[in-house]
Amino acid sequence: MTEQHLMLHTDKYQINMMYAHWKHHTHHQKTVFDVYFRKLPFGNGYAVAAGLERVIRYIENLRFCDEDIAFLAKQEENYDLAFLEELRQFKFHGDLYAAIEGTLIFPNEPIIRVEASVFEAQIIETAILNFVNFQTLIATKAARIKQVAPSDILMEFGSRRAQEADAAIWGARAACIVGFHATSNLRAAMLFDLEAKGTHAHAWVQIHDSEQEAFDRYAEALPDDVTLLVDTYDTLRDGVPHAIATAKKLAEKGKRLKAIRLDSGDLAYLSKRARAMLDQAGLQHVKIVASNDLDENIIVELKAQGARIDSWGIGTKLITAADNPALGGVYKLVAKEKDGEYEPVIKISGNPEKITTPGKKNVYRIISNETGKAEADYIVMHDEVLEGSTEPLMLYDSSHPFIRRKVENYRAESILTPIYASGQLIYVLPTVTEIAAYHRTQLDLFWPETLRKLNPEKYDVVLSDMVWNMRKELINEHSK
Amino acid sequence: MTEQHLMLHTDKYQINMMYAHWKHHTHHQKTVFDVYFRKLPFGNGYAVAAGLERVIRYIENLRFCDEDIAFLAKQEENYDLAFLEELRQFKFHGDLYAAIEGTLIFPNEPIIRVEASVFEAQIIETAILNFVNFQTLIATKAARIKQVAPSDILMEFGSRRAQEADAAIWGARAACIVGFHATSNLRAAMLFDLEAKGTHAHAWVQIHDSEQEAFDRYAEALPDDVTLLVDTYDTLRDGVPHAIATAKKLAEKGKRLKAIRLDSGDLAYLSKRARAMLDQAGLQHVKIVASNDLDENIIVELKAQGARIDSWGIGTKLITAADNPALGGVYKLVAKEKDGEYEPVIKISGNPEKITTPGKKNVYRIISNETGKAEADYIVMHDEVLEGSTEPLMLYDSSHPFIRRKVENYRAESILTPIYASGQLIYVLPTVTEIAAYHRTQLDLFWPETLRKLNPEKYDVVLSDMVWNMRKELINEHSK
Repeated sequence: MTEQHLMLHTDKYQINMMYAHWKHHTHHQKTVFDVYFRKLPFGNGYAVAAGLERVIRYIENLRFCDEDIAFLAKQEENYDLAFLEELRQFKFHGDLYAAIEGTLIFPNEPIIRVEASVFEAQIIETAILNFVNFQTLIATKAARIKQVAPSDILMEFGSRRAQEADAAIWGARAACIVGFHATSNLRAAMLFDLEAKGTHAHAWVQIHDSEQEAFDRYAEALPDDVTLLVDTYDTLRDGVPHAIATAKKLAEKGKRLKAIRLDSGDLAYLSKRARAMLDQAGLQHVKIVASNDLDENIIVELKAQGARIDSWGIGTKLITAADNPALGGVYKLVAKEKDGEYEPVIKISGNPEKITTPGKKNVYRIISNETGKAEADYIVMHDEVLEGSTEPLMLYDSSHPFIRRKVENYRAESILTPIYASGQLIYVLPTVTEIAAYHRTQLDLFWPETLRKLNPEKYDVVLSDMVWNMRKELINEHSK
Repeated sequence: MTEQHLMLHTDKYQINMMYAHWKHHTHHQKTVFDVYFRKLPFGNGYAVAAGLERVIRYIENLRFCDEDIAFLAKQEENYDLAFLEELRQFKFHGDLYAAIEGTLIFPNEPIIRVEASVFEAQIIETAILNFVNFQTLIATKAARIKQVAPSDILMEFGSRRAQEADAAIWGARAACIVGFHATSNLRAAMLFDLEAKGTHAHAWVQIHDSEQEAFDRYAEALPDDVTLLVDTYDTLRDGVPHAIATAKKLAEKGKRLKAIRLDSGDLAYLSKRARAMLDQAGLQHVKIVASNDLDENIIVELKAQGARIDSWGIGTKLITAADNPALGGVYKLVAKEKDGEYEPVIKISGNPEKITTPGKKNVYRIISNETGKAEADYIVMHDEVLEGSTEPLMLYDSSHPFIRRKVENYRAESILTPIYASGQLIYVLPTVTEIAAYHRTQLDLFWPETLRKLNPEKYDVVLSDMVWNMRKELINEHSK
């Protein structure tokens, strides 16, 4: 999948800064940028990393075409021709580390680290944030839905309400990496090898002279995969009895009606009544699919009321992350080359939560060998190596740094995986099925209290002493 | 701009229904589908039509490629080879009418009418809704922002938080058709001939040894277009004084600092203090740009506090329509061919607002010749022609049909413009500038009370007697 002019999918200020660096001959200066977010969406206890495949496809095609250059030439009269020539030669030569898709991630820890010349690091900022913010958001929303219906069939049905075409397909994929079973969008199914599912619309019923005729004809055409939408006129009076009649005709041919679908009205009541009617007709095998502005909160309520729904079609509220439609991921300079070494840099802010954590860093997930559960994520300077360490760790509570606890008998797993080394892709992209399997192993690392939908227990992201002290020093320096 | 496989940007059930129609030889049956929405977003008094250019580009490229067909062949074992051959020949031969971009539109009136064989009409449903729902939503959100800052410079800055790449560019365009002046996204600027604007990021300041050095170097590189971001360390202590110093150096070269930008902290306080400091330094011409999670509500508050902000960079809340991230536009069958004529069809629902309005219809905007203002939108059967009519009209109140008022001395303007006739594009796409000018003439048709942000006066969409009676008849028929 190539898309035209994705190289220009960036903010104008990136090019302006690139130009100003080039003009001052500082464009080869090496930099380290961290991607992270500050706040979990939906009041959830975690987020699910997503967007990396898109980032990789983007970087693999990172070239300015002639048309791009011609457009940029008109942008600023000041742009030197030699600068445009430099752009024409553009290629990404940097290193990139990332939390791979399906990983559980938390606020204020680096989920991507870019090491590259400032020239290369700036231009990719906007696209990386655009891709990672959206896909992580949708994967997280979908994970919440999966939490409340872990054994049901979950289908992404949101294309018509998605925020344009890319959101529809990448959002469908994001849902499937956390365990959604299918999408209605055929393009997403083709591009990402997802299962596509679908039934028929109200229009199918309306165009026929009767609902019964509509059902029968649909079943004749596609006898092996019949789900009938029963709410075009009156669900219990017309729709369900007509579906039962069609099921009997299918049975005569040795075929089975697969499901009925409810798309309006009181889903708790209708599903219970429909279940009873189907069972009474000997159609215990016929499933009930529900849709209509569903999300994790409505599903929990429906289940609490004893709704008999086997399968959920989730549209608008998933694909737009309706209750929290943006993840505020940022891309911040944390170190710059100075005399051949990396020097940490900080951004101060009147909003304390916006002060950055400087330095080239790594993140470890500290996992107890006794419980097999994660104790905390631990941010270190990149030369503090924890793999194989048996030293006890002192973890302070990030909100109350006067409280500390000691962790012994643990293993430390690095969260950032090498993706690019000197511009070379060194990571093999997994399939969506593989990501979904990996995501399940990630969930196993956490207590249910962290994973629950409402008021989850806070999981801690802790700075090492070295990181903490260095940050404090830089803050002090700037407040002198 | 061509995008791969957009033909598959549809729900699987569309193909299933097409197949079932094809199987029963009903796929050439002519149909009429209406696109409309039921509820205004953001509590606004109107919506702004957008998305038509995207719909047209999509229909112009509506072909299945070999890869699409190969993919579909694997979808259902039942699909006949001859059906796949039929798909290979697919082309849109229908008629399409639409409210053109920039038109003010209201709930429950057709904003697009598609007349085509059911085969052709079904497959385009999903994409049309996806495009029109999103772009209309963002144009409407942007119009609200324009209402509260009609004389200020408005810039769309949301790419990094947009719901993927398409949303970033089409959202930027939607903002510009209602009067936004620029976008930060270069790809949007190139594809739609928009103005691109941008300054520099915090990273530009951080990478230099001092903020002063950073500002000076930026101004040296791009002396004709300098906006300095002043909040990397301390806005009033460091940022503004450094910007003033840079402005003085620019002045020595006969150049002017254009603006400073505030991106955090108390924008009311900081803008007033910064204004005073700039003025005291003789820099009355230097503008103040603000950004940081802005929307129409925050802008109104800032203005009420006397904030001295000339220009607004609006990101997340605009590009995601954060307080109402989906428009619920639907695509409903309203008439089907029967014995060579159109027969109106209805969809009944337990939710009364979901009952459709049947029939092939037109919509007129009824404009008083005395005031020049719109009195109501009036939905008629397509053979009720109002152009040039001098007959008094009885308009009942749509919520209280026992209340009626008489309108005389009016003109009736059709809202639906012919776009496609028998598959031929017969509409010339306007530029964004032309759409923005047309949109202003649309706003002039309405009273300020309809246009205001909070508690707008409801504008009425009224059914003609013929439409009303026909709808009632069909409801009665189905409840027999």
